[in-house]
Amino acid sequence: MRVLGIDPGLRNLGWGIIDVAGSKLSHVANGICHSAPGVGLEGSPGGDSGDLARRLLSLHAQLTDVLRQYAPDAAAVENTFVNKDAVATLKLGQARGIALLVPAQFGLTVGEYAPNAVKKTVVGVGHADKGQVDHMVRVQLPGVKIAGPDAADALAIAICHAHHLQSAGRLQAAMKRAVG
Amino acid sequence: MRVLGIDPGLRNLGWGIIDVAGSKLSHVANGICHSAPGVGLEGSPGGDSGDLARRLLSLHAQLTDVLRQYAPDAAAVENTFVNKDAVATLKLGQARGIALLVPAQFGLTVGEYAPNAVKKTVVGVGHADKGQVDHMVRVQLPGVKIAGPDAADALAIAICHAHHLQSAGRLQAAMKRAVG
Repeated sequence: MRVLGIDPGLRNLGWGIIDVAGSKLSHVANGICHSAPGVGLEGSPGGDSGDLARRLLSLHAQLTDVLRQYAPDAAAVENTFVNKDAVATLKLGQARGIALLVPAQFGLTVGEYAPNAVKKTVVGVGHADKGQVDHMVRVQLPGVKIAGPDAADALAIAICHAHHLQSAGRLQAAMKRAVG
Repeated sequence: MRVLGIDPGLRNLGWGIIDVAGSKLSHVANGICHSAPGVGLEGSPGGDSGDLARRLLSLHAQLTDVLRQYAPDAAAVENTFVNKDAVATLKLGQARGIALLVPAQFGLTVGEYAPNAVKKTVVGVGHADKGQVDHMVRVQLPGVKIAGPDAADALAIAICHAHHLQSAGRLQAAMKRAVG
C-alpha cells in the first residue's frame, strides 16, 4: 500500500510518499509545492489582482501531478491551525482546502491528524520538536533525502497514517478470526 | 459582461450571477451550494473519516457546474474571516480555497473584496446590515428571486465587482483619450 502525507501551506506545501508492506515502511518520494506571491502584479481598483486564486491554482496543479505520478492508495493531511492570527489561519485554511480536495478528486479517503497525534506516533511523545520528528523520519525511512522541513513533516504524517491503517487492519483481521 | 459573485462557506456557499451592459445590471441566476457534514459516517481509528475532503469535493463539483452552465467573464469572492474562533476561520478558509480555485480553473481572474467594501458599493455605507444589503440588491436587480441570505451576499459581491470593473474601464478609456 502506498500512502501520501501532506503538510499544507500556501507558500510551501510539503508532500511525502511511502510504501507499506506488512510492518516494513519504505520511502518513495517527497517534495514541496511552492506558490510564491506574484511579483510585479498590479492590483486593479478593488485589489482584484487575482494573485491568491492563481497561487491556489498552481498548488492544485502541482499536487495533482504528484498524485498522477505516484498513484497513492491512501492520503492524510495535518489538521493544524495557527491560533495567533486570523489572517494567517484563513490563508492556511485555503491551502488546506486544496490539500484535502486533490486526493478526494482521485477517489481517496483523506485522513486528518492533529500535529500532536503525528508526533506521538512517529516519535513517541506528543510534544516532540521538529528536530526529533526529522530524526525519527530518517530512522524509519533509511537513506531518505528530504526536500525540506515541510517535506519531513509530510513524511511523518504518511508514517502516522500508515500505522493507524495497519492498526485498523489488524483489528479487522482479529474481529474476523473471532467471528469466524 | 457576465459577473459571478461568491460568498464562501463550508455548509452554505452562496453564488450570484449578473449581466452588465453599460451601466445596466440584470440578474441571471443565484443559488447556494450545500455540503452537509456526513450522516452515519463511521470514523476509522485516527479520525480519518474523510468527511471534510468529501464536503470540499462536493462544493468543487457544484461550483464547477455553475461556471460550466453560466460561463461568467469575471468573478469575485468576499474576503472575510471570523476572528472569534480559529477552528471556524480554518473551516471558512478551506471553503474559500475552493471558491477561489474554481473560477481560476476556468481562466478567470478572481477579485477579492472586504465585506465593508461590498456594503459601501452596494448600499453606500460600510456598516450596512444584512437587511439593507438584501434590499439594495433587490432594488438594483428588479424582479430577482433570491435563494437565501448567502445568495443575496453573493449577488452584492457581483454588483460590487461590476462597479469596480466599470470604474477601471472608464479610467482606462479616459487615459487612452488623454494619451491619444
